[in-house]
Amino acid sequence: MCARDANSRFSGGEFQSPALERLVRCFGRLPGLGRKSATRVALHLIADPQTGADLVDAVREAADRVRHCSRCGAITEADPCAICSEPRRDATLLCVVASPIDILPFEKAGFYRGRYFVLGGLLSPLDGVRADDLPFARLATRVEQDEVTELILALDASVEGETTALYIQRLVERHGLRLTRLATGIPVGGALAYTDEATLQRAFEYRRQY
Amino acid sequence: MCARDANSRFSGGEFQSPALERLVRCFGRLPGLGRKSATRVALHLIADPQTGADLVDAVREAADRVRHCSRCGAITEADPCAICSEPRRDATLLCVVASPIDILPFEKAGFYRGRYFVLGGLLSPLDGVRADDLPFARLATRVEQDEVTELILALDASVEGETTALYIQRLVERHGLRLTRLATGIPVGGALAYTDEATLQRAFEYRRQY
Repeated sequence: MCARDANSRFSGGEFQSPALERLVRCFGRLPGLGRKSATRVALHLIADPQTGADLVDAVREAADRVRHCSRCGAITEADPCAICSEPRRDATLLCVVASPIDILPFEKAGFYRGRYFVLGGLLSPLDGVRADDLPFARLATRVEQDEVTELILALDASVEGETTALYIQRLVERHGLRLTRLATGIPVGGALAYTDEATLQRAFEYRRQY
Repeated sequence: MCARDANSRFSGGEFQSPALERLVRCFGRLPGLGRKSATRVALHLIADPQTGADLVDAVREAADRVRHCSRCGAITEADPCAICSEPRRDATLLCVVASPIDILPFEKAGFYRGRYFVLGGLLSPLDGVRADDLPFARLATRVEQDEVTELILALDASVEGETTALYIQRLVERHGLRLTRLATGIPVGGALAYTDEATLQRAFEYRRQY
């Protein structure tokens, strides 16, 4: 992958530098960057070597230090993570999220005092993500050990999110806990006129007594 | 810049890892990447350490090998570059471009048999780019030494491009060479209905006898 091609010679449409072409290919493999944006970034690094050196340091430091919490799967440098180590957080409330990044909006809002469990993905038969690929066994153990009373599913409102929610429902039904899901509806401040049909239908379906 | 903050503690809305936050900041400083896309890239590198190692290698190799051609300013690993070293290319034809990247479409198309001169920028008083910041003295020497007969300005059709073109016109007027600029008009295959007003006005102004 993005290896240096020893035999590469200058050809029109490419830079006269295999090293720069390799750099462009490397950046082009990152999510969200195409050839154009990768070229822009690579030329920026050539023009500003300090930024390149900083980037190299940061990638290496992150590779050395960053790990996943062995209890909840959050990204952390200490294991267990700060949230799992905080005794004042309610261990009987467990919020299940797909990715470590999904913890951020909860912690920013600051209203939630329970703990988390990161699945690291969602069930997706089409993409080849099956139940064996996700830590459901660890989730079941955690529910039992921490005597969880409420499991909050904070999963995407997508087909994969629904499938995963259904699987977890079956997984924990014998535990007799309260299983909840985040509400689906019109966002706060969202304009009704610009709400997509699926969201509107859900918001109608789950309408509350006023 | 994107340094590790020794005193940083976990706060809501950020990852529980200063190293990851630093990585996100580093990527966020690259052109075209905001906090969201930088986070996506950083998490990708955490999940796939090989890509991170490849990236580190590629950045370091590029920093070691990539340089600017001392004659034309193109990006190269050998100095002078392949284009400047090619004896069959017509040295009396000189194409002036703003950035090394502007050479690529010419070489891809393959019709141009002259040489290049990279300015490395355009005059922009508002951004603090003045004549002293660009290699105009080297351009004048080059024009003289190579007995350039035609200087082709391949600069953006922007205020900065116009300003730079005007400056070069004054710079070389005593040399008695042919000074040309790329045509401005409707692109091949471009739809007239979707052509912006400025382009349409130029295309009309520079209309040719049919």
